[in-house]
Amino acid sequence: MIKLYQFHPSGNCYKVRLVLHQLGIPFEVREMDLLNGATRTPEFKALNANGRVPIVELEPGVFLAESNAIITYFAEGTPLIPTDKLERARMFQWMFFEQYSHEPYVAVARAWLSFFGIPQGKERELEERIQKGYAALDVMEEELKKRPFFVGHQYSLADVALYAYTHVAAEGHFDLSRYRAIPAWFERVQAQPRHLRITDPAPVAR
Amino acid sequence: MIKLYQFHPSGNCYKVRLVLHQLGIPFEVREMDLLNGATRTPEFKALNANGRVPIVELEPGVFLAESNAIITYFAEGTPLIPTDKLERARMFQWMFFEQYSHEPYVAVARAWLSFFGIPQGKERELEERIQKGYAALDVMEEELKKRPFFVGHQYSLADVALYAYTHVAAEGHFDLSRYRAIPAWFERVQAQPRHLRITDPAPVAR
Repeated sequence: MIKLYQFHPSGNCYKVRLVLHQLGIPFEVREMDLLNGATRTPEFKALNANGRVPIVELEPGVFLAESNAIITYFAEGTPLIPTDKLERARMFQWMFFEQYSHEPYVAVARAWLSFFGIPQGKERELEERIQKGYAALDVMEEELKKRPFFVGHQYSLADVALYAYTHVAAEGHFDLSRYRAIPAWFERVQAQPRHLRITDPAPVAR
Repeated sequence: MIKLYQFHPSGNCYKVRLVLHQLGIPFEVREMDLLNGATRTPEFKALNANGRVPIVELEPGVFLAESNAIITYFAEGTPLIPTDKLERARMFQWMFFEQYSHEPYVAVARAWLSFFGIPQGKERELEERIQKGYAALDVMEEELKKRPFFVGHQYSLADVALYAYTHVAAEGHFDLSRYRAIPAWFERVQAQPRHLRITDPAPVAR
């Protein structure tokens, strides 16, 4: 049984739950107490030296880290990854965009404002992160004016990766009412078969 | 002819030159004056809304962004991407690690200290970036104590992605003499056929 080490409210962890559920792959979760540094212990760092969740245990002792690498692993050969070479590259483009230009701003602002508190002396840095988060959202809005999903006409891992933190960006005090294409895309993502909300408990593996 | 829009000293741009050269794919470069904001103009943003290099023009009007997506595109079906599913996932794990946990620290410190200057009021942030850069280098060192390359026993895109900024980390004032496995890995990377140095001019396309 695949085991997901996670912090439930994390968008990165949600990506993995969503993809596993949509693909019908059973898994069990091990909840990590991030507020008490559970991923920074020597025991956890033996599983992921980088001290982050999500990680999945694929078989006893075999761990895989990085949310976007994990969902790529499970989605290989499924409709969640385009078969066309350029579309597949475009999917990865958006997934790397998500980790480099979106997550550090949209997700970190949310983490500070909704879960961990603003670290001491980081008030100005928060403002800058919010500004850069809006820049990422602006890029998304422009793209979604042109097409229904990030890659061609089909829901893919690019949508999963970008949906995870964007749809809860209000928890980072982002005002999504200034966008039109993004909320319309939320509805298309939520209408996919076997959608799972971030607040839904992990499905019980049978 | 493939056209690479780049800033030559950028490690992200270097990744693309290195992979294209190693695969024997001819390309021409268009140098962007990053010090004068050449990627933030409306003209450039029409090519990449995210305002960053590298981008490649694959055919007239078809652009691909994000260094790690670009090298994945070109390396598909070559020995630079492992054929084993788990090894391929591990490669992506390291490439996402590079963009999330390494580049924002190791590359940004180098950019500030060697090219653009420290932005006003960012002195403390620089210290934090250097600290987190060492954390990423520590993770790499531990991994390279166990294996010759990041994925199994073979040079892959994971090595390209991590080599790009690590081997010039001293330009970000990182002291690499505290590591042993990393410099030994540099030699293995540099010994690969058709290696290109970051300072080498782009090969002349024929």
